[in-house]
Parts: sequence; C-alpha cells; structure tokens
Amino acid sequence: MSDTPLAIGIDFGGTSVKTGVVFRGNVIDHAPPISTQDFDEPEDLIDAMVRVIEDLRSRHSHIAAIGVGMPGFVDFDRGVVYNLTNVRGWVEIPLKAKLEEKTGLPAVVENDANCMAYAEWKRGAGRGLKHLVCLTLGTGVGGGIIANGQMVRGARHGAGEVGQTSIDYRGRRGAYGNLGALEDYVGNNEITNTAVEAYHAAGTHKSAEDCTPAGLASAAHAGDPIALQIWDDVGEKLACTIMNCCWLLNPEAIIIGGGVARAGDLVFGPMTSHLYAQLSAPFKDHLMILPARFGNEAGMIGAAALALEQAGFPVEP
Amino acid sequence: MSDTPLAIGIDFGGTSVKTGVVFRGNVIDHAPPISTQDFDEPEDLIDAMVRVIEDLRSRHSHIAAIGVGMPGFVDFDRGVVYNLTNVRGWVEIPLKAKLEEKTGLPAVVENDANCMAYAEWKRGAGRGLKHLVCLTLGTGVGGGIIANGQMVRGARHGAGEVGQTSIDYRGRRGAYGNLGALEDYVGNNEITNTAVEAYHAAGTHKSAEDCTPAGLASAAHAGDPIALQIWDDVGEKLACTIMNCCWLLNPEAIIIGGGVARAGDLVFGPMTSHLYAQLSAPFKDHLMILPARFGNEAGMIGAAALALEQAGFPVEP
Repeated sequence: MSDTPLAIGIDFGGTSVKTGVVFRGNVIDHAPPISTQDFDEPEDLIDAMVRVIEDLRSRHSHIAAIGVGMPGFVDFDRGVVYNLTNVRGWVEIPLKAKLEEKTGLPAVVENDANCMAYAEWKRGAGRGLKHLVCLTLGTGVGGGIIANGQMVRGARHGAGEVGQTSIDYRGRRGAYGNLGALEDYVGNNEITNTAVEAYHAAGTHKSAEDCTPAGLASAAHAGDPIALQIWDDVGEKLACTIMNCCWLLNPEAIIIGGGVARAGDLVFGPMTSHLYAQLSAPFKDHLMILPARFGNEAGMIGAAALALEQAGFPVEP
Repeated sequence: MSDTPLAIGIDFGGTSVKTGVVFRGNVIDHAPPISTQDFDEPEDLIDAMVRVIEDLRSRHSHIAAIGVGMPGFVDFDRGVVYNLTNVRGWVEIPLKAKLEEKTGLPAVVENDANCMAYAEWKRGAGRGLKHLVCLTLGTGVGGGIIANGQMVRGARHGAGEVGQTSIDYRGRRGAYGNLGALEDYVGNNEITNTAVEAYHAAGTHKSAEDCTPAGLASAAHAGDPIALQIWDDVGEKLACTIMNCCWLLNPEAIIIGGGVARAGDLVFGPMTSHLYAQLSAPFKDHLMILPARFGNEAGMIGAAALALEQAGFPVEP
C-alpha cells in the first residue's frame, strides 16, 4: 500500500444517492443508498449525505476529499447545482460549499457523465490518453470530452453533451428544443418504442416489457430479424454522432458505456461497420473504439478521482 | 512601435501561394502570388517560396518566423504536409524542415482553417476568449476549435473539421465517405446547384453564374422569394451544426467567416433564428455569434501569429 489518500465518491441519481469510499479506482466500501424522495428540502438531503459521509469516515482514515456526480447542469467552478428536473427543490444549490462547511473536507461537484468520462480517462479504458470522447448509453445518452489532456467543460460547464447533438437537422424536437438529438433515437425508451412499433408493423404484438434493450438483445441473439434490425439502426445512429466527434475532435479513442452498451457486439458490431464505411483513413486507422471499463460505479470512481485531483493529489496513471 | 518581431505569413491555396509580412495582425507587405501550376515538383515550388521570403526579408528586418497555412491535412508537430489534392506531387512533404533549412528561420505548417481560427482567436473577433468555434464558409466549409485556451488538433491533427460533420445521418455521401456533411449542403457549389434546381422547379431558368452566393445575395436583397428561401435553408443547416458544437463544446463564441458569410444578414438572420429556436437557455443566453474580423488575409495573419508563438514570442491580446 502507499499513502495515496482515499476519497468519497457520490453518485447522485434521480431516485437514489449512492456513496462509496474509493481507493485508486476501486470502490472499497459502500454506504446504504439514500432515497431522494424521502426529503422535501435539499438541506435535509444534504444532511443525510453528510451523515453517510461521516459514517464512512469513522471506518476509514485518510479520506481527503469528496466528489459528487450530479444528473444535470452544474457550475463546476463554483460547485453549484443549477437545477435537477427529478429531485424536488434542487435549484441553485451551492452543494460544494455546503459539503465543505459541514464536513471540513474539500469537495467537487460535477456532471455525472463527466464523472464517468473522468473515471475512464484516469482509471479505466482511456488511461494515459489525451484526446477522448466518452458516451454513456442508458435512459439518457450522456458524454464527456477530453482534449489536449484536459476535460472540456466549455464556457458554462455545458460541454460534452454528446447525446443532445443532432443526427438529423429536420428530426423531431427533443426535450431541450433541439431537433434530431441522438438521445431521442437511441435512449432506452426510444429503442423500446421503436421496437414495439416495428413488431406491430410486422403484425406481431410485443409489449414494452418485451422490448427493453435487454429483451431486444436476447431476441437478437436468438436470430429475431426485427430485433437485429433495431440494433443495426441503433448502430447506424451512433455511428453518425461518433463520426461527428471524430471530425470535430479527432480523439484517440471513443469509450462507450452505460446499460445499452451491455448489448455488446449487437451495438458495437453495426456501429463500427456503419462508422468505418464513412470514416476516411487518417481517422479510421488510428481510432480505438473501446467498451467502458466501469459499470454502475463509474460515477463514484470518477467523482472521487476528480475530487482528489482538485484537492492537490494528482491521479497518476 | 515596440520590438514585437515580424513574421512571414503564407496562405498556400490550391492555385496560388500568397505571402505577406505580418505585424501584430496587420499584413504590412505582400509578395506577388506564386502560381502552384507553374511547378511540377514540390521542391521547385518550395524554392520559389524561399525566394519570395528572402525578397521580403531584404525589405524588412526583425522577421523572426515563418507560418504556412495549407489546404489539407498536415502533421503540425512534424511540420509535414500529408497530401494536397489540388497540387501535383504534394504527398508527405516535410515543408517545415525544408523551409527552416533553406531560410534559417523557425517555421510552422498548419491547416488553413486552423490558421483562420488562430487569427480570429489571437487578433480578431475572438480575442481573449478560451472556448471558440470558427467556421469558414466558401467552396469548402472549414473550421477550427479552441477549448480551454488551446487549439484542439486531436490525436492526428484532424480535429476542427466542422464542415465534414453530418447534419443528416442518411444524407448523401460526400468526398470523404461521410453521409450528410454540412459542406455538401452549404459549400458554394452546393448552394449554386440547389438554387439552379429550385429556379428550374419554379419554371425559371437561371444559370450557375446567376446563382453564385453573390448573385443569390443580390436576388434576395431584391426580394426574390426563391433566393430568400435558399438563404433560409443555408441558415437552417448551419444552425444544426452550430447547435452540435454548442452541446459538445459550449463555446463562448462562434465566429463565422469566408465568402458565403459575406451575404451578411441573409446568412446570420436565418441561422440565428433557427439556432435560437432549438438552443436551451444556458447556451443561448451566453453565446456570441460573431462575423470574422479578417477576410482573405486571415490565413496569413493566423499562420504568422502561430509561427511567432511557436518561436517563443507569445501573442499578447
């Protein structure tokens, strides 16, 4: 062992807040999750988070920092959560300052997809790289960008939202007003809806429960042509966005994680083939397309690594 | 005056090579252009460039560096031109090394659209900004990206190619194999072709000469509904790509230059209106959309500024 300090990593989700103790990219202890719905006031939820943190600190010395990944827009520099659509009252909450005041530890607050990207960059599939695009495929499609060996947050911390970029300038309007957003084609629910419709058009009734990404993966593995076509379509749409990332950012690697990515070759196969059919040689020859190393713990691991870096403990590859 | 040194800026185009002496963002002297078609061998063209450089040096002391903007892929670090499609024999040419050997001055070789972005960032509309996307609209649609106060070149110097990103994942296949590239909708020739077809469909004959961007700007200013529609379509397509740049990079400003941008409000009006209709508040409220400051001289100015920076004379805003 060395004297690398530990950090608390917090994955703040729409329904639950998961907290772990992270050591060099491994979650070595977990606290019981906190249900966000049990708290009417952000202050009360923050106090519950602090109790969990203090409980973990009582079991582990050397905890040097706290990192929180949030499901929404945050101001990373000020540590303020702008707005959470799924959690009551979370508007303009100075979470970093409150955690620091209540625990005495340095804290960082970051967008959850950026935390996932950070985990993969510092501890996972993208270790040692300088130019990286991460996608996380689930109910939403999130992302994070590393360029020139730095996280790209942009002017107002809004960068990296790969899932909100358009693949069709006359596509339908999504939640943020944008037309043809990738997320509105390959998010979990859209995959399910598209599949239910495709089966219906073919004269087969399938419920939404049959057509979850996991259900469609099973059907495709059994050779179901409709399910196979759905995955091909998902790959085609992902390929468009990945190609755009290549022309804009020319990354060394694209890292893909999240639940939908668990369909494995069903996603990676068509995606790669649609992508390579339209990428020119300088990109194609040097691009790595990698599955994410981390699953559900990516947010905790990334938030913890980021917290340590910001607290002055650089994460060495 | 100060002792800020001068630099040679070279805009290497498909048909001619333009060379100027640049002082703090101003081209203070020009050499006669060199026609690329007069030379069968790259070495002979390089010698002609060197003669022009030496002639300018004989008239100006304090020239400290040479910057060259090239119309194609370059390896910025090694200073090698990979391939020029329009100039005979230019494959894997170590231009930086050859210029340095023949002139004794430090040289840089960069993609021309990156030079334009560099000019706007260091000397033009984007001075002092840290997060910037530049587009240049002409026969081709080029671009350059600044993030975290650094040029984004990516893993193999291919980044910033805004015009090659797709706005339609099932659009037609472009020169590089990519489907639905912005350039294939809003490049000069595509604007002209679209307009000729639109007039034809409306029962009017117009030649390609009538339908240059300049001709269509005149027609639109005179109230011609077809020309106005063409510009609205151009704005709609540009808006899609700019929106994608916002979600990915969250820049402080988008800077737009090049010949097509000279249509002014005819481009900026529809583009801004299509863009604002689909950008959410955090982006919209803080995004500047700016016309480029520099015109034809952007390449020379940017190449010169970059050359000075690399030679150890940082360009102060």
